[in-house]
Amino acid sequence: MMRLPVETDLSKLDACFVGVPFDLGTSNRTGTRAGPRQIRSESVMLRPYNVATRAAPFERMRVGDYGDIPINPYNLLDSIAIIEAAYDRILAADCRPVTLGGDHTIVLPILRAMHRKHGKVGLVHVDAHADVNDTMFGEKIAHGTPFRRAVEEGLLDCDRVVQIGLRGTGYSAEEYDWGRAQGFQVVQAEECWHRSLQPLMQGVKARLGDGPVYLSFDIDGLDPAYAPGTGTPEIGGLTVPQGLEIIRGLSGVNLVGGDVVEVSPPFDPFGTTALLAANLAFEILCIISESA
Amino acid sequence: MMRLPVETDLSKLDACFVGVPFDLGTSNRTGTRAGPRQIRSESVMLRPYNVATRAAPFERMRVGDYGDIPINPYNLLDSIAIIEAAYDRILAADCRPVTLGGDHTIVLPILRAMHRKHGKVGLVHVDAHADVNDTMFGEKIAHGTPFRRAVEEGLLDCDRVVQIGLRGTGYSAEEYDWGRAQGFQVVQAEECWHRSLQPLMQGVKARLGDGPVYLSFDIDGLDPAYAPGTGTPEIGGLTVPQGLEIIRGLSGVNLVGGDVVEVSPPFDPFGTTALLAANLAFEILCIISESA
Amino acid sequence: MMRLPVETDLSKLDACFVGVPFDLGTSNRTGTRAGPRQIRSESVMLRPYNVATRAAPFERMRVGDYGDIPINPYNLLDSIAIIEAAYDRILAADCRPVTLGGDHTIVLPILRAMHRKHGKVGLVHVDAHADVNDTMFGEKIAHGTPFRRAVEEGLLDCDRVVQIGLRGTGYSAEEYDWGRAQGFQVVQAEECWHRSLQPLMQGVKARLGDGPVYLSFDIDGLDPAYAPGTGTPEIGGLTVPQGLEIIRGLSGVNLVGGDVVEVSPPFDPFGTTALLAANLAFEILCIISESA
Amino acid sequence: MMRLPVETDLSKLDACFVGVPFDLGTSNRTGTRAGPRQIRSESVMLRPYNVATRAAPFERMRVGDYGDIPINPYNLLDSIAIIEAAYDRILAADCRPVTLGGDHTIVLPILRAMHRKHGKVGLVHVDAHADVNDTMFGEKIAHGTPFRRAVEEGLLDCDRVVQIGLRGTGYSAEEYDWGRAQGFQVVQAEECWHRSLQPLMQGVKARLGDGPVYLSFDIDGLDPAYAPGTGTPEIGGLTVPQGLEIIRGLSGVNLVGGDVVEVSPPFDPFGTTALLAANLAFEILCIISESA
Amino acid sequence: MMRLPVETDLSKLDACFVGVPFDLGTSNRTGTRAGPRQIRSESVMLRPYNVATRAAPFERMRVGDYGDIPINPYNLLDSIAIIEAAYDRILAADCRPVTLGGDHTIVLPILRAMHRKHGKVGLVHVDAHADVNDTMFGEKIAHGTPFRRAVEEGLLDCDRVVQIGLRGTGYSAEEYDWGRAQGFQVVQAEECWHRSLQPLMQGVKARLGDGPVYLSFDIDGLDPAYAPGTGTPEIGGLTVPQGLEIIRGLSGVNLVGGDVVEVSPPFDPFGTTALLAANLAFEILCIISESA
Amino acid sequence: MMRLPVETDLSKLDACFVGVPFDLGTSNRTGTRAGPRQIRSESVMLRPYNVATRAAPFERMRVGDYGDIPINPYNLLDSIAIIEAAYDRILAADCRPVTLGGDHTIVLPILRAMHRKHGKVGLVHVDAHADVNDTMFGEKIAHGTPFRRAVEEGLLDCDRVVQIGLRGTGYSAEEYDWGRAQGFQVVQAEECWHRSLQPLMQGVKARLGDGPVYLSFDIDGLDPAYAPGTGTPEIGGLTVPQGLEIIRGLSGVNLVGGDVVEVSPPFDPFGTTALLAANLAFEILCIISESA
Repeated sequence: MMRLPVETDLSKLDACFVGVPFDLGTSNRTGTRAGPRQIRSESVMLRPYNVATRAAPFERMRVGDYGDIPINPYNLLDSIAIIEAAYDRILAADCRPVTLGGDHTIVLPILRAMHRKHGKVGLVHVDAHADVNDTMFGEKIAHGTPFRRAVEEGLLDCDRVVQIGLRGTGYSAEEYDWGRAQGFQVVQAEECWHRSLQPLMQGVKARLGDGPVYLSFDIDGLDPAYAPGTGTPEIGGLTVPQGLEIIRGLSGVNLVGGDVVEVSPPFDPFGTTALLAANLAFEILCIISESA
Repeated sequence: MMRLPVETDLSKLDACFVGVPFDLGTSNRTGTRAGPRQIRSESVMLRPYNVATRAAPFERMRVGDYGDIPINPYNLLDSIAIIEAAYDRILAADCRPVTLGGDHTIVLPILRAMHRKHGKVGLVHVDAHADVNDTMFGEKIAHGTPFRRAVEEGLLDCDRVVQIGLRGTGYSAEEYDWGRAQGFQVVQAEECWHRSLQPLMQGVKARLGDGPVYLSFDIDGLDPAYAPGTGTPEIGGLTVPQGLEIIRGLSGVNLVGGDVVEVSPPFDPFGTTALLAANLAFEILCIISESA
Repeated sequence: MMRLPVETDLSKLDACFVGVPFDLGTSNRTGTRAGPRQIRSESVMLRPYNVATRAAPFERMRVGDYGDIPINPYNLLDSIAIIEAAYDRILAADCRPVTLGGDHTIVLPILRAMHRKHGKVGLVHVDAHADVNDTMFGEKIAHGTPFRRAVEEGLLDCDRVVQIGLRGTGYSAEEYDWGRAQGFQVVQAEECWHRSLQPLMQGVKARLGDGPVYLSFDIDGLDPAYAPGTGTPEIGGLTVPQGLEIIRGLSGVNLVGGDVVEVSPPFDPFGTTALLAANLAFEILCIISESA
Repeated sequence: MMRLPVETDLSKLDACFVGVPFDLGTSNRTGTRAGPRQIRSESVMLRPYNVATRAAPFERMRVGDYGDIPINPYNLLDSIAIIEAAYDRILAADCRPVTLGGDHTIVLPILRAMHRKHGKVGLVHVDAHADVNDTMFGEKIAHGTPFRRAVEEGLLDCDRVVQIGLRGTGYSAEEYDWGRAQGFQVVQAEECWHRSLQPLMQGVKARLGDGPVYLSFDIDGLDPAYAPGTGTPEIGGLTVPQGLEIIRGLSGVNLVGGDVVEVSPPFDPFGTTALLAANLAFEILCIISESA
Repeated sequence: MMRLPVETDLSKLDACFVGVPFDLGTSNRTGTRAGPRQIRSESVMLRPYNVATRAAPFERMRVGDYGDIPINPYNLLDSIAIIEAAYDRILAADCRPVTLGGDHTIVLPILRAMHRKHGKVGLVHVDAHADVNDTMFGEKIAHGTPFRRAVEEGLLDCDRVVQIGLRGTGYSAEEYDWGRAQGFQVVQAEECWHRSLQPLMQGVKARLGDGPVYLSFDIDGLDPAYAPGTGTPEIGGLTVPQGLEIIRGLSGVNLVGGDVVEVSPPFDPFGTTALLAANLAFEILCIISESA
Repeated sequence: MMRLPVETDLSKLDACFVGVPFDLGTSNRTGTRAGPRQIRSESVMLRPYNVATRAAPFERMRVGDYGDIPINPYNLLDSIAIIEAAYDRILAADCRPVTLGGDHTIVLPILRAMHRKHGKVGLVHVDAHADVNDTMFGEKIAHGTPFRRAVEEGLLDCDRVVQIGLRGTGYSAEEYDWGRAQGFQVVQAEECWHRSLQPLMQGVKARLGDGPVYLSFDIDGLDPAYAPGTGTPEIGGLTVPQGLEIIRGLSGVNLVGGDVVEVSPPFDPFGTTALLAANLAFEILCIISESA
């Protein structure tokens, strides 16, 4: 990632990029297992400074690429356990991970490890979908259920959870009400159209407070015009400037980790979406570096 | 469409999707005859509820897919007659059609049938082009002339006609003045840039009043960044949120039918545009279902 | 270009399109040498009037396509000299050139010729990158250095230079400060998000005054959603409406020439970016025609 | 498939097309779960007669499309059981299945059902890979192991097994010797280059004799020039004429079923590979129809 | 074409390239109207000598590009008349045309003009399809009927007609027998597999004798691996070497004209098929130049 | 490459892969500078054993990836010098290089280094083009001239030079005669059609004898159906089996190095050509390993 060397000695790292080539939780179009590889490949076009925010993360922290988590491509539950154990190791070393997905299922084992390390965490969740289904095809663990499970397992501080960008057709007309009932702030995409999200993020920061916060950025939160390479695109999404405002709006928050998920290279052979994801991952790193 | 069964018994339907695989009226790049097939194929990703508006059209109405109109691919005028007869049948059964095009020529026979059923109709026309040429290559019937013909044939209530999104280069600098002279409200794309169209649609609704209204949505009204799969793309177009605001802004209007036309699959192999069109067609259905 | 005949007798032309199939100054992904060919190919879809501004350039001026400059594909410096000599000839004939690139290096020889003809010129520079590096890979002449060289060579009236759209990661956090120190107005992309650029352009026009102005439009100034076909895309860019507002906002300025550069066809097989560039070049011509 | 209606009443069918949208056994690039959908979509271009062989399968048999097997996308072993049960039902009705994959794992449950119905079967296996690994990532059931399992479970009459088209790099230099040790005839791709396979197929038919035979056709047995849409392409493969010679060369054999697997639409947006697969499935049906 | 200037003064030409941007006779996937433009665009990579045959057509003849025939895109029959009149003019000037299609319907008006000039002509017809249907969708003139019409109108010397490359599925099992009954030599693709066509062409030349011969080369005669950009691809086709052997095998024949048809750019964005077609058109020109 | 670690300590290597991201010698379509990166990316699908030949190069030799040569992207001659110096270092360490190009110009500095190390070398040159032009655009060093220069500089043992696969249009009808006059064996593509090249390679091996031999494999020697991702495709090329027969046919030859050049990723977004090139590079390594 960003031409960084692979570094598996976690004691040498304050933060790291981690790839999770996992798409076993996908209901429809597979392909995100190749996400980490394509994001890394496109990231060679990035340079080390953030000119907009003047952040210089590599000067403030020791950052490396931890490589890919070796998932079992034939067994969803086994893979989830492998991911969970890997993040336990990363967090035990006080290294803050920026994850490159993979489908959204992977946020569940990451949040489990986050909870073990930090207790209940706040969450900023950018996505087209709420991902709070009870089951998919009768299964409890899938890319449409992780935040339901996270609530049930007590991993989240529900009053400090914000979902941004939700939209599209649904299995019921009340699809976002469950989250609201848990205490989530749910910001539908329609509320974001045609405007800067800086005012929104002021409120979000107030809500998040000083506790640990995790950022989960599903690339399909953005509009397909910007991010065609994903498995479940939904029209009417956020713009890239809005996506950047969300991340940059977390400046000052205690960000303990983040991810960019659901990048699916087969649907974007020229890598537009992967380049976008690489930039978003870098922006997340910039925020993390503030507290380093 | 949307995994609905094909249903040709119109007495069982309050509304229907209809495909018109016709591109004989195209001046430049053909391909829209494959539009209905690709839109249906992408529509399998849609779910039955509109979470933004909480519409549940399939609970309010009996909806089916009427299949494709069997046009004659070698004869434009013969095909126009076939389309006209088919819509006469559909409307005679009090079934409201949501049409999947096909090039924009097809709106002429549809409007003829609409007029026969409802008398003069109001029109909301989203498009990059005014489509009011007198002739193209010397011919009266083509995808750039349907609204000129519709006015001449007395199908439209011209004071209740709105054209939104017009732009681009033209054959004369005064290309939109003809429509204005007929009484049309012409909203050029430039007037829409950087803003919500909700205020505009308030005025449009007032203009449309209580009479029957038809919605014709040319996908090239939207910007090529969102809808690359079309034959005559024009830069500087509407955004998808604006397109949705136009359709949703018709809530309360007596919408007697609608179409999404000019989707050209060969120029969009990954189906981005067709998925967008499928969503727009569903949104039109949601509005129609209000009055069911 | 726009189905115009090739015309090499400059005495018959008030303005011309010129192709510069040059990509030897490119650091990363080559391909812009095919830009002129693809832009011309897509431009067949353009019509001769600007309906938005009611400009009719072909009625006001004699316009032709001067063809391509015969660069030496194996020698950067030799090619630069060939380009410079060609523009000396064009300008000597009082013909105003609208250039189709090619990478951004070509603006240096063009500005040299402009300076020889007009003295110091003002500059409107739309781009994701400042292009004011001192060297690239140790070389002075490359697509990231032309405006540094132009300042050093005294070609620009630095108080009348505006850069719009700059953004992305950089080699230092202060990457845009050099230009500001020269007197440039630097407008970062973030300042443009979510808004019309008409107010900005009011100020820009005041700054530019009555003197000669050159417009250099790097297609990567626009967001990759609109312009994927370029070598160094950066997320978070200008929208096409903003790009049009910049050009149209120069109405009344003494525009002595302009270019659209960095269109790279291999990364955009369907020609979306080239069609956009063709439109931008036409819009530049419309502004030039005002003073003809 | 081939515009056939879906027919789930097996008593009305002598043969059927079956889709198995399963890619959970894939080690590298997923995507074959969309194979059945794209193959059906492309098959609309097929007509009902085989002009080369003068076969008329729809006149000789009752053929329908049985639709897709409803696999569980989150659980490999559960899906295998679902597939196996479905084929038990199909075969119990004396209906001969032509299967559209899906990855190659699915041949294991199909062969189990075949064995239950017919006893040990002969096998013609066209593929780039032997698919006789003991395990993949430690798992026994995956797309590289089905024929190892089939041998271990006693499903195959090993002296009547032929593998054609094997090639590529391997995990050991002796990768094909295991099959030979079981009695398989292994025909490496190199033996097929530059020649007709009609002589080969004479020998194969003699070997297969009168007993029941299953044909499993992995599309990657063909060269990537013909079949780019697959997850594990290998250079130097069979040509399409050779592939047709293999299928047509089974004329007279007691073919009890067949499949075309490993078609991966994301890697072939224009559907070249799916159209090829649709043709191969039709050719298999033609052979099956001989004994109907 | 091949960077030749457009030349409409037929008296200056011994042979010419002609574009016919017509696809109104297409039953399924339109797009061939853009064929001439893409073939010309790709032909810039060709050089003027045939190194294999040492032919130098531009030294032996005056060759130009006659441009495109201005068809009426809304009226099939009117366009056919326009084409016929144009070829009458070309042939009246003793100029031998090499036509760039367009769909295969266009060969009918060309053959009518050929017959008017030369009397009955021999024909070499390379294609996947016999194109001898009586009607398509009830129409007599379409891209699947031209040779039926040509026989009925007495344009062909049926004993000097050869069809090569026929294959695929059909509407009846006896689809090629009609042609044979007229006296055609029909060479199915299967007869061509794995071998040089030089021996075949020896016999073809003997059959053609000294009379005038027309060559009609449908690009779908070649396999989709070589020519994906066409509307009705069929697997198992001829190879490019075989295609070249057919054309070069006509050396010594009195070739009065030829065409390359059914190139459909939307299905081949990188222009592979158009480059192939440009080469075939050049090879046809080389044969024509022998008798100049 | 092939997941090998980068190893820059040449003393640890008997053979190495080397990338040369250079396309400054390209006359037409640039893009090959990205070749090494895409070839490495696709090579992750390769496994370490050659099942066809049972070669096990990693067991016989120490092999590493030496990384990319740091060329100067703005200066052709400077880059040539950098490449030459790098190969001097590689060869001085008795390490045999397998080079991933890059355009064909790079073979000149490689041959210079080879000559310095080994004296005059024999050459097997697979290509569509002879690459023996005297100049291109007036320049001596370009991708169409390297073998002319190599002969002039006395680097080659001309009686032990074989060119295979030459074809296409040319600047003169006698384009291949210069090489023949130097003593080269020139095998035009037409001589290769429809047949195994094993007999040819018997003769080639006899000609090459025991002296040092270099293999230069331009991917455009193969047909565009197999290798679309290249800048100057020519129809009628070699098949992949023939390409493999050429390389494998060098078994027993004293192969001192080899390259695969002219892979241009922009023209092959799915990486088909790069995967092919990765396999060819591996096959070259297998031959080199015989003499290790």
